[in-house]
Amino acid sequence: MQSLFVVSEALRGRKVVYSASMTTALASFIQGKWQAGNGKGRPLENPATEEVLASASTSGFEFSAVLDYAREVGGQSLQKMNLKQRGELLSKLAAVMADNREELLKLAQLNGGNTRGDAKFDVDGASGTLAAYSKYVESEELTIRDGEAVLVGRTSRLIGQHVWLPRKGAAILINAFNFPAWGFAEKAACALLAGMPVVCKPATATALVAHRMFELFVEAGIPEGSLSLICGSVGDLLNHVTSQDVVSFTGSSDTAKTIRTTDSVINAGTTVNVEADSLNAAVLGPDVDLFSETGQLFLKDVVKDMTQKTGQKCTAIRRVLVPASAVEGVCEELASRLSEVKIGDPTAKGISMGPVATKKQKLDVLAGIARLSADTEAVWGGDGSEVTPEGTNGKGYFVSPVLRLAKDPSNLGIVNEHEVFGPVATLIVYDGTASQAAKIVAAPGGGLVSSVYSDDKPYLREAVLGMAPYHGRIYIGSEKMAAQSPGPGTALPSLLHGGPGRAGGGEELGGIRGIRLYQQRVALQGDKSLLKSIID
Amino acid sequence: MQSLFVVSEALRGRKVVYSASMTTALASFIQGKWQAGNGKGRPLENPATEEVLASASTSGFEFSAVLDYAREVGGQSLQKMNLKQRGELLSKLAAVMADNREELLKLAQLNGGNTRGDAKFDVDGASGTLAAYSKYVESEELTIRDGEAVLVGRTSRLIGQHVWLPRKGAAILINAFNFPAWGFAEKAACALLAGMPVVCKPATATALVAHRMFELFVEAGIPEGSLSLICGSVGDLLNHVTSQDVVSFTGSSDTAKTIRTTDSVINAGTTVNVEADSLNAAVLGPDVDLFSETGQLFLKDVVKDMTQKTGQKCTAIRRVLVPASAVEGVCEELASRLSEVKIGDPTAKGISMGPVATKKQKLDVLAGIARLSADTEAVWGGDGSEVTPEGTNGKGYFVSPVLRLAKDPSNLGIVNEHEVFGPVATLIVYDGTASQAAKIVAAPGGGLVSSVYSDDKPYLREAVLGMAPYHGRIYIGSEKMAAQSPGPGTALPSLLHGGPGRAGGGEELGGIRGIRLYQQRVALQGDKSLLKSIID
Repeated sequence: MQSLFVVSEALRGRKVVYSASMTTALASFIQGKWQAGNGKGRPLENPATEEVLASASTSGFEFSAVLDYAREVGGQSLQKMNLKQRGELLSKLAAVMADNREELLKLAQLNGGNTRGDAKFDVDGASGTLAAYSKYVESEELTIRDGEAVLVGRTSRLIGQHVWLPRKGAAILINAFNFPAWGFAEKAACALLAGMPVVCKPATATALVAHRMFELFVEAGIPEGSLSLICGSVGDLLNHVTSQDVVSFTGSSDTAKTIRTTDSVINAGTTVNVEADSLNAAVLGPDVDLFSETGQLFLKDVVKDMTQKTGQKCTAIRRVLVPASAVEGVCEELASRLSEVKIGDPTAKGISMGPVATKKQKLDVLAGIARLSADTEAVWGGDGSEVTPEGTNGKGYFVSPVLRLAKDPSNLGIVNEHEVFGPVATLIVYDGTASQAAKIVAAPGGGLVSSVYSDDKPYLREAVLGMAPYHGRIYIGSEKMAAQSPGPGTALPSLLHGGPGRAGGGEELGGIRGIRLYQQRVALQGDKSLLKSIID
Repeated sequence: MQSLFVVSEALRGRKVVYSASMTTALASFIQGKWQAGNGKGRPLENPATEEVLASASTSGFEFSAVLDYAREVGGQSLQKMNLKQRGELLSKLAAVMADNREELLKLAQLNGGNTRGDAKFDVDGASGTLAAYSKYVESEELTIRDGEAVLVGRTSRLIGQHVWLPRKGAAILINAFNFPAWGFAEKAACALLAGMPVVCKPATATALVAHRMFELFVEAGIPEGSLSLICGSVGDLLNHVTSQDVVSFTGSSDTAKTIRTTDSVINAGTTVNVEADSLNAAVLGPDVDLFSETGQLFLKDVVKDMTQKTGQKCTAIRRVLVPASAVEGVCEELASRLSEVKIGDPTAKGISMGPVATKKQKLDVLAGIARLSADTEAVWGGDGSEVTPEGTNGKGYFVSPVLRLAKDPSNLGIVNEHEVFGPVATLIVYDGTASQAAKIVAAPGGGLVSSVYSDDKPYLREAVLGMAPYHGRIYIGSEKMAAQSPGPGTALPSLLHGGPGRAGGGEELGGIRGIRLYQQRVALQGDKSLLKSIID
């Protein structure tokens, strides 16, 4: 594609090794080489212009062989490396990304509808996560031993020692369309460090960034078989999983259900980690003045989560709980800030929000807003369809930010049931008590992250402990941390990412915790000196 | 039933409070009271005599209300108790079992086909597990905090702290027929300590022991709603699970599949822990002389696992790997020991092996032996049907111990595929290398526990590390621990019980590890002093 050439040549000062650019067909990196599928494949578009950038097909691939190669060749490569060497591999991947940052940012803007800020959030988030994980090799906790030895006999000779060992399969990483770079990095960092070869399957529609990353990785040199990339449909890959593979999936709960109930997955007992729907809430405490630091942080975080990545973050705030007394002020402030959002082609100057990623996403978002409308009132953005994007040719998958209002907390209907994956949030009026807030926040049955904004300790204690069992992370916005807060929507390498119930029940990141998904915990039981000779 | 009366009165010197004994219908303890289902229910037999001891029905139960009561009333009871108080509850349950040990042992013998030794293994294993867990409340690791706080901002004000909180649902514990007492205890100890109310569903056929335990618990006084017991079918209970419930299941992989693919379980994202099939292996190292301590331990453990509980242990050795040079000796020694096994009504004197638990089990075991026979040769016990039990009336579900031999390690067929859940094992001839042993042991795709008997460090290292990723526990039999070894078949509170793949992917016990199944791990992120006021 011409556009890709221009980007790449201009940025890198040389003709890039871009196997797809001549043919527009993105190859996959499988069985140690770049291979293109048969047929036309699925198109990858620029969602701001609807221009087709490339296509991807996996037709004709033999996925059982793809997995076998990863398990055997990749498994051996990684498992003969020590922890320090695996850490160095992550550092190298991070450095490759940093060295090619401008090109990757541009590709994210072209294929993802990202503003430059959005693109950084994905690309720098990815390299940052790889770099952060490369440092965990120095952690004392990341040893083969899980806890201390325990006595299990009458004398100190007979002991038990739990250990962590890499699973002898492939880590099949199926990522969502919204984070082609970070989605790879947050899963692959953990799998590689654990010693498992990675088979990465980005969402086809936005695979350009991941594809280019893999080209750069391969060019820089990676351990044989350690990284495979599938651009296009996953085909019958899941029919070939074994008990030692791990499937780590981010995406819709419908697809999660399909994965979980696939015969081969059930029969082999394959480990499946899911990160799916989440109706993340932000709760404003009754003590908060909107013009205090805490109040301003709350407003900033809500608007950021509505507009960053055009609201396409699994961690984005979808429900905003506000005490009755504060509703009018919050509506006014949010509407004022949303009115300043500049929508348009994100490669143009001054644009603060791009399109959603695909035509299907636009249709889904608009349909979701229509469903919300049945149970809510409009505050800003109406039904989302009225938008006049700047710098576009009248095309593109644009929607307006939409803020809705639900006045009756006892009758929230669809607001607690359906996640609209776009720049859409609903204000919910509550009575200002921590107990009602916790009950509403918990209602959807499990989420990734919710947040509470307050400086009132008794209120916070009740609200946080009430909400926490339904989440993987709780973020507390308050006066003294406001200046340095990343907001609830930023997943950090050191804190868990995942949540129970409808959020999928998964656990990713969280430092060393995320690595354990790719290892088997085993109790070794026997004579102390024999065990020592096995472990050390 | 008369027999129950006799047992109970004679042992306890008073008329027992045994709600079922007048009517033979076992009641369930639900919604805070004993309630019997409608209709005839399913019979509970004495498998040595085929005498019907009682029946159990849950027809007419409203299972959504059963779960609601447990979650609300039981959840509140337990979550207002501190850890020390929950530990005291476990101590109390253990003491109640110890005080009524003789009665429980007799019931296990009557309803389970257990020898007195088998009954002790179950009943003492249960009280021992409850007692062991009561002591974990003193462990420094069992705090709300998961690891240290981490810095997540530019200054030390903004931190993240992972915590463990009890899930706000019910722990639905579905147990297997072979361990009515221990099956309850190993799951309930963890759930109660975590702060989750227990809904216990023993296998109906052998529910008498669990039923009596609950009568004794209720009589002794338990926190309201903390323990419920379902005697009989589980009905539509699974249709009412939520995202905060935990289903912990031990049993067949077919039932596990049904649970895992139940719409409500999938849709709610309910946590499911499974402990299912396992083709546990025992590997004899090439260095071992059969008449050494290690060799004798190996022979003892194999015979024990074949005959204890009539081979009905999920941890029992099913495959016995022997180097070609040792096969003849092993066959001779095992046959000699098996010839001394006295089969009959386990309440009679001198009996060392009782019947299997039910008619269905007998049919399954005989069918399984027939399947094995296609790929193996007979060493002892033929097809299992030729048995003349002592002290019986010609009835009862008896099978003979059966030892088979598979000579070609490259063609093991059904031996690596089908678990025969009875007194049955297969010898497998291997080439004496650790690599071939590990490969054969791993072949079924995941097991609970396998064992290696050797004193050769390099051999052990290769064999153990090769087998370990496919297991939850590896047991090393060697000279210096032989005198105090419990054998691989004994699950210990301090070591993990569970295994990947076909073993179900679950993790139970393992000390504090087993408690975490019933808790949600959450990252709390915010101002340091606010977080402290929430957690402490």
